[in-house]
Amino acid sequence: MSSKPISVLITGANRGLGLEMVKQMVDTQSPLTPLSVLFACCRDPDGPRAEELRALAKKHPDIIKVICMDTADRSSIRQSAEQVGSLLGEKGLNLVINNAAILINSTLVDSTPEDMAKTFNTNVIGPMSVIQEFLPYLRAAAKNSEVPGMSCRKAAVVNVSSIGGLIKNVPFLQELFTAVPYRVSKAALNMLNACAAFEFQKEEILFTVLHPGWVRTDMGTADAPIDCEESIQGVLQVINSMSDKHHGVLTDYEGQTINW
Amino acid sequence: MSSKPISVLITGANRGLGLEMVKQMVDTQSPLTPLSVLFACCRDPDGPRAEELRALAKKHPDIIKVICMDTADRSSIRQSAEQVGSLLGEKGLNLVINNAAILINSTLVDSTPEDMAKTFNTNVIGPMSVIQEFLPYLRAAAKNSEVPGMSCRKAAVVNVSSIGGLIKNVPFLQELFTAVPYRVSKAALNMLNACAAFEFQKEEILFTVLHPGWVRTDMGTADAPIDCEESIQGVLQVINSMSDKHHGVLTDYEGQTINW
Repeated sequence: MSSKPISVLITGANRGLGLEMVKQMVDTQSPLTPLSVLFACCRDPDGPRAEELRALAKKHPDIIKVICMDTADRSSIRQSAEQVGSLLGEKGLNLVINNAAILINSTLVDSTPEDMAKTFNTNVIGPMSVIQEFLPYLRAAAKNSEVPGMSCRKAAVVNVSSIGGLIKNVPFLQELFTAVPYRVSKAALNMLNACAAFEFQKEEILFTVLHPGWVRTDMGTADAPIDCEESIQGVLQVINSMSDKHHGVLTDYEGQTINW
Repeated sequence: MSSKPISVLITGANRGLGLEMVKQMVDTQSPLTPLSVLFACCRDPDGPRAEELRALAKKHPDIIKVICMDTADRSSIRQSAEQVGSLLGEKGLNLVINNAAILINSTLVDSTPEDMAKTFNTNVIGPMSVIQEFLPYLRAAAKNSEVPGMSCRKAAVVNVSSIGGLIKNVPFLQELFTAVPYRVSKAALNMLNACAAFEFQKEEILFTVLHPGWVRTDMGTADAPIDCEESIQGVLQVINSMSDKHHGVLTDYEGQTINW
């Protein structure tokens, strides 16, 4: 392949979909190769829940940099950005994947104000803060690119959201999947992406929303129809193929555009 | 008219659209007459910003009860609910209008985590808490009704939201009206309403979203095309005409259904 190496950052990279992204991205057959660097961010890089990620980083020390980032904490995001900035150089950061999220299963009657605030903080304010703190590096990458238009090889933010955040899906999804704080936060994240897409259009930074499918992870439970590997194989292909027409749009892991 | 008198609660009733609702609802020509009681809630009933509301309440002491409620504070909402409960009796509460909201004008780059959290707290967690705390009275009203189906004369929650909370409107509204925290909160409120509509369908409590238009208030600014009087004349007619077909639906002040 003749593509230039790209720099990528993933939040929530120590388990579930995030970990699978890291795994598949360092594979030489990945659609996104070649990578110059992959910043794999998680809350506690030294803790027991990051063991697999540490092992991966040890196997690929030239590519994977494990970064401490708690997406529920602005100052932690800022510190991560400073660290990433010092490692990046002038070419900037090409691709940010806002993947970290939490899910609280509760009905409207049972959701507490704390459930709602905590979920909104991690799932919406977190991605917003990541966008804001890493914006200088995304802008550098956009300016550094000689290619017109938008792509993940230039400057892009992929917000991992869910079709569970669409109002039209409530009647058939809510019975199966009663997660009011999560659903509300994903509707909010989808709007945040739309506002970002509007605001950064002229700078040619791609903002897009991805539905990774209902996946067998801790969050998706064992009832889900697909596994991490299948979801992320699709997700990476979709990310790699993204262009201006994905800007402000929701796409699933099979590449289907989904109307709001 | 032969309709039974209904009980109504409005949040943010001391100014803007909320105050206008109170004004028009006590008019004997209002579509919603007859009222048994109108709970007009605001944060500081004794403060200078509630002067007009106090004057109205003085003129209509049998109908208007001014209630202290800070929709940003769960314990304040709980106290209001206890007070309202003690005044209501067994017939319950027919209509709750979640009107209180705040608007912070900022771009995505300029929005702080605090702007986002504060707006979400007042515009989303507030309405959720009002629904939860007043639910026993809404349920009493639904059970007390002998009429099948849904209506504001039985048991209903009207969430005042905005077409600014729709993703499809971002491209043409955001230039004019750059209020990212508000837009995100209204998208979230619309989803909250959808979840509530699903959860309370069997109990026949109507949950609906209303777009009052872009109105000349402190929030809407002097640039808005319509005034409070025109908006609320439409709003009250729409609320009065609501039935099962408005459940989980967004309607504007002219009665037009708006797709998500």
